[in-house]
Parts: sequence; structure tokens; C-alpha cells
Amino acid sequence: MYITDNFDSGNIRVIALQDPQDIQLEIKHDNQSEFFQWFHFRFEAEQAQSYQFHIINASQSAYPQGWQGYQVVASYDRQQWFRIDTDYDGEQLKFSLALEQSSVYFAYFAPYSYERHLDLLQTIQQDPRVRLSTLGQTLDGRDMSLLQIGDAEQAKHKVWVMARQHPGETMAEWFVEGMLATLLDEDNPLAKKLLEETVFYVLPNMNPDGSVRGHLRTNAAGINLNREWQNPSMEHSPEVFLARQKMLELGGDLFLDIHGDESVPYNFVAGCEGVPSYDARHQLLEETFKQAYMAISPDFQDQHGYAKNKPGEANLKIGAAWLGEQFKTLSYTIEMPFKDNADLPDEDYGWSPERAMQLGADVLFPIKQSLARL
Amino acid sequence: MYITDNFDSGNIRVIALQDPQDIQLEIKHDNQSEFFQWFHFRFEAEQAQSYQFHIINASQSAYPQGWQGYQVVASYDRQQWFRIDTDYDGEQLKFSLALEQSSVYFAYFAPYSYERHLDLLQTIQQDPRVRLSTLGQTLDGRDMSLLQIGDAEQAKHKVWVMARQHPGETMAEWFVEGMLATLLDEDNPLAKKLLEETVFYVLPNMNPDGSVRGHLRTNAAGINLNREWQNPSMEHSPEVFLARQKMLELGGDLFLDIHGDESVPYNFVAGCEGVPSYDARHQLLEETFKQAYMAISPDFQDQHGYAKNKPGEANLKIGAAWLGEQFKTLSYTIEMPFKDNADLPDEDYGWSPERAMQLGADVLFPIKQSLARL
Amino acid sequence: MYITDNFDSGNIRVIALQDPQDIQLEIKHDNQSEFFQWFHFRFEAEQAQSYQFHIINASQSAYPQGWQGYQVVASYDRQQWFRIDTDYDGEQLKFSLALEQSSVYFAYFAPYSYERHLDLLQTIQQDPRVRLSTLGQTLDGRDMSLLQIGDAEQAKHKVWVMARQHPGETMAEWFVEGMLATLLDEDNPLAKKLLEETVFYVLPNMNPDGSVRGHLRTNAAGINLNREWQNPSMEHSPEVFLARQKMLELGGDLFLDIHGDESVPYNFVAGCEGVPSYDARHQLLEETFKQAYMAISPDFQDQHGYAKNKPGEANLKIGAAWLGEQFKTLSYTIEMPFKDNADLPDEDYGWSPERAMQLGADVLFPIKQSLARL
Amino acid sequence: MYITDNFDSGNIRVIALQDPQDIQLEIKHDNQSEFFQWFHFRFEAEQAQSYQFHIINASQSAYPQGWQGYQVVASYDRQQWFRIDTDYDGEQLKFSLALEQSSVYFAYFAPYSYERHLDLLQTIQQDPRVRLSTLGQTLDGRDMSLLQIGDAEQAKHKVWVMARQHPGETMAEWFVEGMLATLLDEDNPLAKKLLEETVFYVLPNMNPDGSVRGHLRTNAAGINLNREWQNPSMEHSPEVFLARQKMLELGGDLFLDIHGDESVPYNFVAGCEGVPSYDARHQLLEETFKQAYMAISPDFQDQHGYAKNKPGEANLKIGAAWLGEQFKTLSYTIEMPFKDNADLPDEDYGWSPERAMQLGADVLFPIKQSLARL
Repeated sequence: MYITDNFDSGNIRVIALQDPQDIQLEIKHDNQSEFFQWFHFRFEAEQAQSYQFHIINASQSAYPQGWQGYQVVASYDRQQWFRIDTDYDGEQLKFSLALEQSSVYFAYFAPYSYERHLDLLQTIQQDPRVRLSTLGQTLDGRDMSLLQIGDAEQAKHKVWVMARQHPGETMAEWFVEGMLATLLDEDNPLAKKLLEETVFYVLPNMNPDGSVRGHLRTNAAGINLNREWQNPSMEHSPEVFLARQKMLELGGDLFLDIHGDESVPYNFVAGCEGVPSYDARHQLLEETFKQAYMAISPDFQDQHGYAKNKPGEANLKIGAAWLGEQFKTLSYTIEMPFKDNADLPDEDYGWSPERAMQLGADVLFPIKQSLARL
Repeated sequence: MYITDNFDSGNIRVIALQDPQDIQLEIKHDNQSEFFQWFHFRFEAEQAQSYQFHIINASQSAYPQGWQGYQVVASYDRQQWFRIDTDYDGEQLKFSLALEQSSVYFAYFAPYSYERHLDLLQTIQQDPRVRLSTLGQTLDGRDMSLLQIGDAEQAKHKVWVMARQHPGETMAEWFVEGMLATLLDEDNPLAKKLLEETVFYVLPNMNPDGSVRGHLRTNAAGINLNREWQNPSMEHSPEVFLARQKMLELGGDLFLDIHGDESVPYNFVAGCEGVPSYDARHQLLEETFKQAYMAISPDFQDQHGYAKNKPGEANLKIGAAWLGEQFKTLSYTIEMPFKDNADLPDEDYGWSPERAMQLGADVLFPIKQSLARL
Repeated sequence: MYITDNFDSGNIRVIALQDPQDIQLEIKHDNQSEFFQWFHFRFEAEQAQSYQFHIINASQSAYPQGWQGYQVVASYDRQQWFRIDTDYDGEQLKFSLALEQSSVYFAYFAPYSYERHLDLLQTIQQDPRVRLSTLGQTLDGRDMSLLQIGDAEQAKHKVWVMARQHPGETMAEWFVEGMLATLLDEDNPLAKKLLEETVFYVLPNMNPDGSVRGHLRTNAAGINLNREWQNPSMEHSPEVFLARQKMLELGGDLFLDIHGDESVPYNFVAGCEGVPSYDARHQLLEETFKQAYMAISPDFQDQHGYAKNKPGEANLKIGAAWLGEQFKTLSYTIEMPFKDNADLPDEDYGWSPERAMQLGADVLFPIKQSLARL
Repeated sequence: MYITDNFDSGNIRVIALQDPQDIQLEIKHDNQSEFFQWFHFRFEAEQAQSYQFHIINASQSAYPQGWQGYQVVASYDRQQWFRIDTDYDGEQLKFSLALEQSSVYFAYFAPYSYERHLDLLQTIQQDPRVRLSTLGQTLDGRDMSLLQIGDAEQAKHKVWVMARQHPGETMAEWFVEGMLATLLDEDNPLAKKLLEETVFYVLPNMNPDGSVRGHLRTNAAGINLNREWQNPSMEHSPEVFLARQKMLELGGDLFLDIHGDESVPYNFVAGCEGVPSYDARHQLLEETFKQAYMAISPDFQDQHGYAKNKPGEANLKIGAAWLGEQFKTLSYTIEMPFKDNADLPDEDYGWSPERAMQLGADVLFPIKQSLARL
């Protein structure tokens, strides 16, 4: 038996690897941070045998309630990630698999590698309507890349979409990949019409360092970027500093910040009802967006989600809230499940890259409906 | 120079083939019918030269006004069909091309062959939710094939979609192919939800004989199937007889009959306002459908189309009207252009298989919205 | 239960279709000919049941010994053709299948449709090194298409490859498709080098009428084209007349005529040892070819095959013999099995399109070796 | 203008980035080593402008003669790598490009990333004939992965293939990928026959640390692995230590070590004529291999290459020599060009991944011919 996490977004610590029925593992903390929940490792052993894994520090993770009803994803080919039997006893996360091949990968959710991120940028930029630029660099020296889609000068509206402030929420970048594919599909009339009047600014990965390092929530310095929006700095949170600076420079009419949620088994949005300037116009935009999204996608709903902020009680350190207040416009956090959409469950794959991509494709419809209200 | 139409859906008659600048052609009539407009032929000649074609009987075709603003499609590889310079002088249709390869195909619209039709049926049937059956045979002995998608016993609603009563309107089968692909996409939540309560009955090609023969509007016996719905017969219109019989046996809640229109450069529907039983409920369903379709697809609109029937003046020989009256429910003819959607024109390809497939994918949304009103 | 052969290369006659355990069928004769053996039909019935088919005129077919050890091919998707249990009792060919889908196709060998043939021509011609031309027309009015690959003026050698004089031997066109793909692969150094000095003339389908009609061995008029080479005529065998005329006009240094054999479960060649002009040089070319082919492909061998002609006793009506004599050079008939290569059997698929394509790709090596001896 | 090398196998140092016509760069040394020549970086700038790059320390690189006649590869999509105008003046390497997109990658040769390496391993292992195992770990903690292909117990012969001892020679892993694809192609009779009697042991990447770090020739500790074969150690060269140990344990009949050569514009082999035990049998194997390889691939030749060792003067620190002496059998270093094969030049792409893959596919033929001599 052999275990390694020495690759892009790998994260596991081996505690005991003698007994195939009691493989003991720990998830590593994000660097300089208490947060941990993301894991990703390769396991190699005798084929056709069954193995039992125990993540023994599961109950100390960032969101222990997230393990309830959660199923680990596994893959033999690093392309198709299927769900496997998983149990959480309040202390340990236990999962087992009878190996069909000698080498298998396990992860918290289907990974989205930095190499794929770079491929995405280069592929997308080949469309004449796209402009790729670099805002600056992260603490580890990686690029903060911005995609502009559409004609900034002609556009009546500006839409910003960013993903993976929390790097372990990989579904967020799958979502963006799906959105971009549809947005640039020249045979899609909705996308074509949207781009006649709209310019999109897309940050597919707000936290490349955390992504490569196998972090759940923070950047290379252990900073939770989604609490940095009031006072970002080049020293601790250049990712937010650079993005925010560009947003202030260019302005925006609609903001989406794409996330994954460890606990809630639904797709939902968290809005701006708690920001000081929230008003009827803002509310109308939010309602329009939600109604349209529910209409187009049964994977989206508005029953389950976070408790609403009371008026004036929004945490303006959070990206979506800060942006909603700053630009006085629709600014949503979109949350997808690590588990599944309980309204439309998929036994084999749960919530998956393919479904996140579809939700990303479908988001163009509520965007278009909302912009029509501006 | 060499011209042939001896293949699936081929149609041309060579009148003169001496002068590369004055190649004279005629479109053949549908068998036992006056109708003609569909053409499809292969041209072979010296590469890198320019050739001028004249369809000299264009003004006697079924819809001469259809040639106004129309551009011929051509293809070197039989996959990608691009538009070429075309002019109609009120008598002849003239088009020219500088050959990039020695062999090129021309057609009225991108063809959809019987082989592709058979491939579609076999591919689709492999999904466990699909059941392929044969209703009977055409006059030339081809299969009238029906696809059932979804669980007929569980379903609350039954939706019928048929295409190509008029065989030269190939965009209708491209539309169906696109609709089926999305309907069976297991990662598409709208399709998944729709199939929880709905069974689809799909007739991808109502007129295989006319399709193979290269007809515009009629079956092997020169019968316009879309005027046969009150009195179809196994002798003259078995295609309608068999389909109608099955519809009467199984019932239906929503009917779509997919067509192409020679003249109007828009996508639109023709409804049932002229059938005797038309009422407020029927109108509500129609409005719901149209509003939803316009919302999801800027390729669909409701400004341009046919003049509305006056109350009670519908022609009940027409499929959509007869079905609307018979089942007292939503029954639309969906029309796509041979030309382009003038609202969202594409210079290179005009209206195309890819766009028809997208419109077919998008039709699931208005279907779902309309069914919710039942 | 329903059976149809009404499509490209379909061939079956239903005798009895009441008892699922005793479905009685006959193969139709080639038009105006006694030959029959090719069959191809679609069967539709209740899924998850088992069905037994009897071809009751099997013993009267062209090569009844071909049924010994033969297994029918079947396909649910018309792409992948698998072998099924088959038995020949000296009179009837019996095969059975438990249906996984409601619609399945059966055939003597994986079909190669006229649509695919046309697609191949158009696709191949897009390579700047290829020139597609039409020699004339068949009795049914289809094109006799010739592909020239390479630079005729620069070339030191001319190689002719033709396939499907016998239309039911579909593996011959799969072979040609595989050969062409490799020949035009710009990253294949053997192909690149070969084309520096050689021009290929390829007739991918010598008998399109028989192919579409579902014939085994003859053209539309029931003529066995491979007995027409001494005296072809535009009246009875325009296919040979046109090809032969072009060969005489252009000349050739190496000729391959691709076939399938009903009985012998091996790939082999039939050579020119019986033609009057056969000499040591001719023999050297043949030996070089065979040795090289065996070296590169364990699917080729020289143990099993036809009895050799005695000197001077070749039948010069046969294409390969006539060409070998006429051009006094290497002229081989290449035979592939309908069954399998018994040296390297594949239980699931037997001899298959994929393997025929590989043998076609591999033929470039013996061609190159043989040309080096000229 | 912006330049970064912060990704898998990136390597460049920016000296001056003010003048688009004089961008000054240096290649970084391998860690703890004097060697350098591999470079790989992303450049971002205004589109449609021309830029001139100078690698100012080119003349101090490991093989300055390698720059003569060399052309840099570039890619907009990280998939297709094309050659660009390059000049070496004896001091600096100069190349320029008019940007078609705002972001472009440059490299010494088309990179082969660690992610692709991991994908290859996982994909290949899914074939039931393959067994993936891990021999141990590199100094940076990466896996030394071994693929066993075929049935070790049945096999008469054992063939070892390893690649990328020198990590910057990425063509070596492309070669292996091509070889593996053909070896596992179930429709390839040569591969099928070969695997009936042979087991392959393949080490697709002997130096993953150097690969990820962007090294030319050494591992994480600056060790040239191909000089470690007499005395490898877990401290300095675990890669060789682990591979060699396994080879000694399992034995072998034929060894291939895949490399790239900076200077020679040809594919060639370096053999064992200088090892003490070299004899007629060894020579026969070498001759058989070379003749067969030349026969099948015009991209291989035996005119140009390294000077032959005198008897007994081989450097046994080198892998191929040590293995040839140890196992007294055929042991070749296969060298491919960074430039092009001057016998069969490709103006657009030079030597390329696709051509390396084809050479890898073609190597099965000389392997089979040589094994037949054992």
C-alpha cells in the first residue's frame, strides 16, 4: 500500500498504513491557517481487494457538519470522479473501496488543476472577442489572470464573475468553464445577444496559490480572501487587492462570486439584503435573477441556504457584500454543494463537474434577465 | 465539368454544362406533384476557377418569393455548409463560387440523410429511457419510426414532436436531433425534471420517402402530408395515417410540428387561433409558450410570421390545426428560415444545422413552462 | 417482430416471422444473377427476449463452405459490429441473439455505406496532395470516382489500388480507408517518403451500384466485374471499362485489388504466377511484397490461400491477372476473411473494420519495399 | 509586456523587459548544476505587434552548438507548438514573433507536463494487461512509476524502455506515449503478437523532479542521472538506484533509453560497441534493430550520430552502456533531435510531439525483429 499527495492540489498526511481495513489519515491544515477540509491523494495497492480509510481529524475540520451525508469522490483515470460509500461518525470520516485498478485518486471534490486553468486561459483567448491580461502576481508568484469577453467600448453593461476565492471549492472553476463555453458558443443566440450589449470580466481562479497547495479556504499566507475586501493589501491578499483595484477602475453592473458550500445540499445564492444601501431596486434585481435561474435550472432553488442578514448587518469584508455596497447593484455569492442537489440527486456522481458546468451555462439566462431591469 | 444528383436527397437537372459562366440547371418536380424548390447536387470541375450557376426555373418553384434574399449553401466536406453569393432576378436564381477543391456540394439547406436518420434512431435507442418502435411503412417501404422518451406510465403529460412532413425542410430534423441530445443529457436538470413527469413521442422524420427522393413538400405519391390530417389513408398518406392513429390511441397534451419556411427570415410559430374550440385556456398555453421561448432564445420571436387565422377559419387539414382541435390543447407549427434569422444574422452560415439544433435544445424550456399551466 | 432491408445495402427476404425461435429468412439473389451471400437487415422486437434466425437458403449461396466456422455480425448502434453465435448445419445458417435493445442490425460483415463512401471522397480531397475526379458513371448512374494522391509529374512510380469489385466484400473499402488515412498522415515518415516518389491512384469502390443494392458479387446488371477485364463494355461493365481505360492511359507499376474471401480464415494474396509473362523479376517483386507484409503485419501470411495457377493457366479475365500481364509488374489480389484471421483470432469481433483498416495502413510498407526493387 | 515561468517546467530569467525589440532573457541553471539549455515561459503583450527576444547567456549553455540551426517552438494554445524564426550569432539566441494573441508560450521543445504524465499512468493502467507500480520516491518526493505491460510469467522476453533521464528532453516522453498507444492497440497485430511473448517494463519519466523544475539534464540535486549507473545512491540519484534495482531483480533482454540531442538534426542510436563484453551476437542484435528501424521509419537513420566508442572504452556510468554490459544484450540510447530530421524536414513544426510519438509507435517493429534473433 502506498499513498502520495505530491502533486497539484494534493493534501493528505498518512498516520497509519499497515492494515488495509484501517488506513489512518489526516487532512493537513492550510498553510498558516487553522482551516482544513480539502483532501486529494493517490492510493496504490493490490487490485481486487477492499480497503477502508479513516480521516481521523475529520471532526476538527472547518465544517464538520459538512461530512454528514457527504460521499468521497474517487477516480481511476483522473477524468471521471464517482462517489463512494462514506460514513461520518461524528469523529472520523470513513470510506472504503474495492480496487478495480491498482492506482486510484480520492478527493473532496473533482479537482481542477493549475495546468487545466492555464489551458483554459490560452484556449479561451483564441476567440477574437476575448482579451487575456494579467493583473499582477500572487504571493507565490503566480498570475492573477483576467479574461475580458466582449467589446468594452460598445457594452452597455459590465458583468464580473470570479471563482475560487476559496481554492478547495473547485466546482466554482468548473462552473466558470461551463459558463465560458456557452458564452462563446457562436451558435447560442442568448450568448450572442448578451455579448452585443455586455462585457464580461471573468477571474476564473482568484486563488491559484491555495489551489496548487491543496488548501481549502486560504491563500499562501493563510488568508481567507473572502474576508479581505474592505482592506486588501499586496502583502497579505494581493489576489483581492488586484481584482478589487480593477473593479474600481472599470466599474460593474452585476457581480457573481462563485463558491461551494460544505454543508448545504443545494445550489443557492447569498445576497445583499444586509448591506447599507440595499433598496427596492436592488431587491428587484435579486428577485429577477433568482426567478429566472429557478425557471431555467431545476438545479437552482431559493428555499435552502444561509440565514438572511438583517438590514445593515452584512459583513462588508465579504466580497459579494462589499461589491454590492460599493457598486450599489446586484452582487451574489453563488453556492454549489460538495454533496449533491437533494432535489435532483445523482447516486453515482452526486454534484459533479458536468453539473457545475451546466449550472454555469445556465447562469447566462438570469444574468440577461437581470440586466434587462437595469 | 460534371454534375450529379444521384445520391440521398439529390435533386437537379442539367440543362447546359458547357460554359463555366452559364451553367444552366433546373430543379425537378416532386414525384407526381407540381411542387419543387429543394435542390442538392455535386459539382466537379477544375479547381481555383470561378463558376456561375443559373437555376432557370426558379420563378416557377413553389415559393418564388423564397429566393429573395436567399443564399445557397455549399460544402466541400459534406459537414460544414457555408453560404455563397446568390442573386434572384425574378426569373433565375444565380450563384457563383470559386472552387477551393475540385468537388463541391450545393443544396437548398444543409441535408439530413436517411443514413444519419437511421444512425440517430439506433444511437438514441441505447438510452434506457428510450423505446424505438415502427408504426408501419411508407409507400416506398421505409419505416415510420417513433421514439418514446420517458416513462409512459408515470408521466403526467404527453408531448408529441414531429418533423419533416415536408421533407425538404431538413432544418426540422436538425432541430429534433438537438432537442433529443439535450433531453437525454443526464447532466441537464431541466431535461431531467421534465422527464420525471413527461413522456415524449418523437417522429424525427414524417416523410422518409420524400427525403430520400429529394422532394420539397410531398411523399412518394406527390401528396402534401400536411394537408392530409382530416382524411389520411394508407393508400396515399400512410405516414399521416399511422402517426395520427398512434396519437389517437395514446393521446397528447402538447404538439409540435417542426417546419422550415422558404420566405420569412425569422423563427416563429403558427398557432391554433382559428380552430373551433380555441378558448382562453388554449390562448394562455400559447402565450406561455411564446413568452418562454422568446425569453430563452433570441432566435425566436413573435413579430414576423404568418397572418393569423380568423376564428373558426383554420384549415383543419393541416396537422397542427387538426391536432389542436382534436386534443383541445397547445399545438404549434414551428417554422425556421431557409435564409437566416434577420434579428441575429450570421454572414457565413445563415440559419444552420447548429442553430436549428440549439433552437431544438431550447424548446424544452417553453415546453416545460407550458406544461406547468396544464 | 419486424424486419426490414429497405436501406443502403439491405438484403433479406422474410419467409416466416411468427415464431421468435424460428424466424425464417432468405437471402436475395444479386439482380440478374445467381450469386447471393451478402445479407443486411434490421430486426425490431421485444427487448430482453431471445430470438433464433434461420437463413434457409444458405446452402444454395455462392460459397456454402463459407458458412462453416462463420459468425454473423450484429450492431445496436450501426458503428460497433460484434460477432454472435452462429451455426451452419449444411443447409441452414442459424444464429440467435438475446436483444439488449429493441432494434438491431445484422449483416454478413460490417457494412460500408454509399454515404460514407461519399464522405470519404470529400474529406480526402481536402488534402492538397489529393485530386478527386470522376471517370464516368455506372449503369445505375453513380459516379466512378478516382482519387489521385501525390504528384503525378514528379513521381517515379505509379501504384493503383482498387476495392469492392465484389460489393459485398465491404472489408475492402475499410482497408482502403485505413490505407488512405495513413498515407495522408503528415507525421508518418513512411507515407511522406513514399509520396515523394510515388503517385497513388485509388478506386475506393469499383462497384457502387452493387454496394447500394446489397449485392454480393455483381453490378446492377448481374455482371461479375472481376471476370470482365479482357472485354469490358460500357453496356455491361462500365465500372471496369472506365477504370481499365484510365489505367491504360496512365500506366502503373504496382496494382492491388482488394477483396474478401468467404471461406479462408486468413489474409493472403493471390498472385500472377500463371500469367504468360511471369518471370523472375515478377517473382522477386511478389516475394519482396509478401515478406515485407508478413514482417510488418502478423495478420498477413502466406501459408493458406488459393491454389497457385500453373504457368500460363491464369484466368486473364480476372483484374489482377490481366493487369499483371498487361503491365508486366506486380499485381496482387489481397484477400481478407469474412470470418477471422485464425492465427490471431478475436472472439468478440472476428475480422473487423478496425483490423481491415490496420491492414490497409500496413500495406504501405510492402508497397515501399517492392517499389524499391523496381 | 509581462513574462512568467511560474508553472510546470517553466524556466527563464528576465534581464530587461522595456524594449519590445530587445527583450533580454537568461536561462536558469539546473539546481546545483552548471547545466542549462531548457527554457519555457509565457509572454504577454499587446497583440499584433512584433517582439524580439534575446537569450543572452545562450553561448554558456550546455550545448552551444545546439543553437546552430535551431528554431524556438511557440504555442498560443499549449497544444500545437510551431517553430519561429530564430538566429544564433555565437553569443545570443535571437527570436521574434508577431503576436496573434496577447499570450504566448515559448519553449525549447514542446513540454510534457507532470499532470500529463500522471494522466498517462492512470489511463494506461486501465488496460487489463497493464500494471502500474511505484518503485519509490525522488528527492522531491515524487513517484518513480513503473508500467508493466504484458504477462510477466508467460513472457519469453523482457523489454525495458525508459525516458527522460534528462528531463528537458521531453520528446522522450512523447515517444513513450506513442509507443504505449500502439502497443495497447488491440487492433494492431504486431503489438498483439509482440505481447504474446514479451513483457514490457516502461519508465515513462526517469526524472520527474527535473521535469517539474524546468531542468535540462539533472535531478533535484543537480545530478546527471545518466552518469550514475555504476554507483547510484538513494541520497543523490534515487531515480537510477530504484530503476536499476528493479532491473537487476527482474532481468531484461532488450533495453532502450530514450533521449533528445541538442545538436544532431537526425534520429539515431548510440550502441554498446565499447562495452567489454561486446561480441558478434550483440552486434547482430544491433544491426537487426537498426536495419528494421530504418526499413519501417524514414525518420530513423544510421549515418549521422555520435562517434563510435573504441572497444572497451565505453563509459559504463551511462545507463545504456552499463545495462548492455550487465545484461549482455542489446541496449540502445535512442536520440531524437531538438531541431528536425534533416532528411525529412518539416518547415512549420520541425521535430514534434506527433513525430516523436510516431517514432515511438514504429519502434515496436525493430524490437520484434531483434527479439526474434534471441
